[in-house]
Amino acid sequence: MTERKIIKAGLLGLGTVGTGVYKLAKRQKEEIEKKTGVSLQIEGILVHNIEKKREGVDPSLLTDNYRDLTGNEEISVIIEVMGGIEPAKTIILEAMRAGKSVVTANKDLVAVHGAQLYETAAENGVDFLFEAAVAGGIPIIRPLKQCLAGNEISDAVGIVNGTTNYILTRMFEDNMEFQEALDQATELGYAEADPTADIQGLDAGRKIAILASTAFHSRVVFDDVYTEGITKITARDIRYAKEFDSVIKLLGIARQRDGQIEAAVYPMLISKDHPLATVRDSFNAVFVHGDAVDDVMFYGRGAGEFPTASAVMGDVIDVIRNMQYGCTGRIGCTCYRTTPVKNPGDIKNKFFIRMQVVNKPGVLAAIAGELATHKVSISKVVQKVIKSGMAELVIGTEEVKEYHMADALNDLKKLDVVHEISSVIREY
Amino acid sequence: MTERKIIKAGLLGLGTVGTGVYKLAKRQKEEIEKKTGVSLQIEGILVHNIEKKREGVDPSLLTDNYRDLTGNEEISVIIEVMGGIEPAKTIILEAMRAGKSVVTANKDLVAVHGAQLYETAAENGVDFLFEAAVAGGIPIIRPLKQCLAGNEISDAVGIVNGTTNYILTRMFEDNMEFQEALDQATELGYAEADPTADIQGLDAGRKIAILASTAFHSRVVFDDVYTEGITKITARDIRYAKEFDSVIKLLGIARQRDGQIEAAVYPMLISKDHPLATVRDSFNAVFVHGDAVDDVMFYGRGAGEFPTASAVMGDVIDVIRNMQYGCTGRIGCTCYRTTPVKNPGDIKNKFFIRMQVVNKPGVLAAIAGELATHKVSISKVVQKVIKSGMAELVIGTEEVKEYHMADALNDLKKLDVVHEISSVIREY
Repeated sequence: MTERKIIKAGLLGLGTVGTGVYKLAKRQKEEIEKKTGVSLQIEGILVHNIEKKREGVDPSLLTDNYRDLTGNEEISVIIEVMGGIEPAKTIILEAMRAGKSVVTANKDLVAVHGAQLYETAAENGVDFLFEAAVAGGIPIIRPLKQCLAGNEISDAVGIVNGTTNYILTRMFEDNMEFQEALDQATELGYAEADPTADIQGLDAGRKIAILASTAFHSRVVFDDVYTEGITKITARDIRYAKEFDSVIKLLGIARQRDGQIEAAVYPMLISKDHPLATVRDSFNAVFVHGDAVDDVMFYGRGAGEFPTASAVMGDVIDVIRNMQYGCTGRIGCTCYRTTPVKNPGDIKNKFFIRMQVVNKPGVLAAIAGELATHKVSISKVVQKVIKSGMAELVIGTEEVKEYHMADALNDLKKLDVVHEISSVIREY
Repeated sequence: MTERKIIKAGLLGLGTVGTGVYKLAKRQKEEIEKKTGVSLQIEGILVHNIEKKREGVDPSLLTDNYRDLTGNEEISVIIEVMGGIEPAKTIILEAMRAGKSVVTANKDLVAVHGAQLYETAAENGVDFLFEAAVAGGIPIIRPLKQCLAGNEISDAVGIVNGTTNYILTRMFEDNMEFQEALDQATELGYAEADPTADIQGLDAGRKIAILASTAFHSRVVFDDVYTEGITKITARDIRYAKEFDSVIKLLGIARQRDGQIEAAVYPMLISKDHPLATVRDSFNAVFVHGDAVDDVMFYGRGAGEFPTASAVMGDVIDVIRNMQYGCTGRIGCTCYRTTPVKNPGDIKNKFFIRMQVVNKPGVLAAIAGELATHKVSISKVVQKVIKSGMAELVIGTEEVKEYHMADALNDLKKLDVVHEISSVIREY
């Protein structure tokens, strides 16, 4: 062990998470010393506007020039919580090249440039840790890389976006329509002013790229992940889900099947008996299946000032311990495979198709026949007469490749008896 | 990094878990090499009977003399999965003194001698890891020591015994009585021939001692944990639990309250909306509350050949990585506090008391009065007439210290109108 008594850190960003990290570092000062033998000191903070008054923050720490931090030889850890690709990427790479370990909560960056960041960390013998980038405060990256390292992981499936889970919970429990639930989420601060990245599944897609890379030891980037959001889900879809003893969740799916990696985000029906179905409100969870451990699930808060700061601080303490023992970089990139990512059209899923059809003899036969020509097998049919002459038909299917289903839907629409395909939802 | 190419391990025990570890080490051989840069080789296995035929195991590895392993200078890791206090303790201490890191799944040992084992590990600069000792395959020790290290943990509450959770699930879902559910658990291999340690809560108590020590940074041993089992729970209790929208679970409770540690195991009513309530069959889960991370839960298989081997192998891979970087012992004992363990009688709980009483005016007043003299406030009363002149009364209480409740129950029994106290169950 070294004789170091203080470790100095530079903080990039002082938004919600940055403030949480700053406060937590203060609150936990003595504890960190007892745990690691050294004192953690925030030596400088990069912000846009150094003039802005920030309560409880020593103004002398603030700088708007990142090189005050990357160029400071006394700083050995950089904590990046500013978000976005640039300038975060440039600053992190410079910091690593200056021999500093980096802890980040930046999913956008890791999901796209993870390989380069890991590579630069390895070249410079520093730590690069990002527990906070996936599912906020929930321990998932370290468990995958260490605790479950003796497993061949086949599935990592998560509710990894709190905004959409809050919206879907309100729709399910309070019978709201999507817009009403979104409005409530915005009002309560669960949704941002521009909720696009959340409700379109993009935020979840970034996390799935990181999860897949970590679980399957092969690099998956954000562009590899097929994403669909929850904007088309209606209160009526939710009512049918209840009828089928299921809930609808926005699931991030990372699977290994047929020697390929499947990476996608869609809203899906999931049986209410599945542990993921019980994850309510803005909570997140990641469900993992490994060949040795079987099923395991990690549940908690996927965002927020202190939950995210908790994950960041866990990483920082790890860096401190590694520095004390001279072993930074001890766990780096574990993507030692190059497994192809499956074309989204080749992924097999079960589907529920809700459609408005003419209510007369022979209609189901026509529809079933059309589906059969596209290799779609029916597992379940529910028909409800809406008004004289018209019926609502919900068809559940067996597993079928996405592109067969897309073709089938195209041809179904052409049938005279089909007035409208109202919704198509996958089943987990 | 060192130039080591092979790391040799000695395995103590070849029962269910030992066999799992042996098979997993074989199955994961190439993967471990890719992850760590070295090859893990099981160099010898301690067994009782070296003559016994064991399919798939190289007989030349077997020995009945542990010093063949602890005295072998080529072996740098000892994996202890034999269980029990002795001779495991003696062998582990000898191994550590010989400079070998130790991975164990032995809850009995860690719950009693954890401090001494950690101390010896520190003196010899080796790793001492026991992820498998609590909740089998579920990552919980490493998340507490690393991922959540930036938190002040206030609660670690777990369903940490699969046998009793299976029994309670059958009682709840199939309306079985305790004995019938136990018989089924035995038949299916979920309960051992002698199920005492499970159904009396002793096994859970050991895990709670380890969890409390890890979460609260203060040593808690098995003797500090108050334990009650599930043998008195009846199908009738379960029916009332359902009426109160709750389930009954055997909960291991580790809490920090009033500057003291509470450590206990009891069957408790828990609201069906709580994440722990959804943990069915032989699954385990540990629910943690930290001041930064808020609520977080870890769910999975708490026992079994491969789930437990998964946790052991995660630890072994960590040891290998530490050896590669020359940093074994990097995370040792974190019990830097000496927080007193609360007397079980001083723990505050809510209770449900089910009793058979005379059905006449004034009975409830008499009972409520008796409770009030013992500082017990009533939150809920349900009365059912069983037969003419007799009623079954279920009283829910507010939080009250255990010893006040014990006194109250003693005095209630003396009341003429109370025929029988049928059950007393705490509420989480």
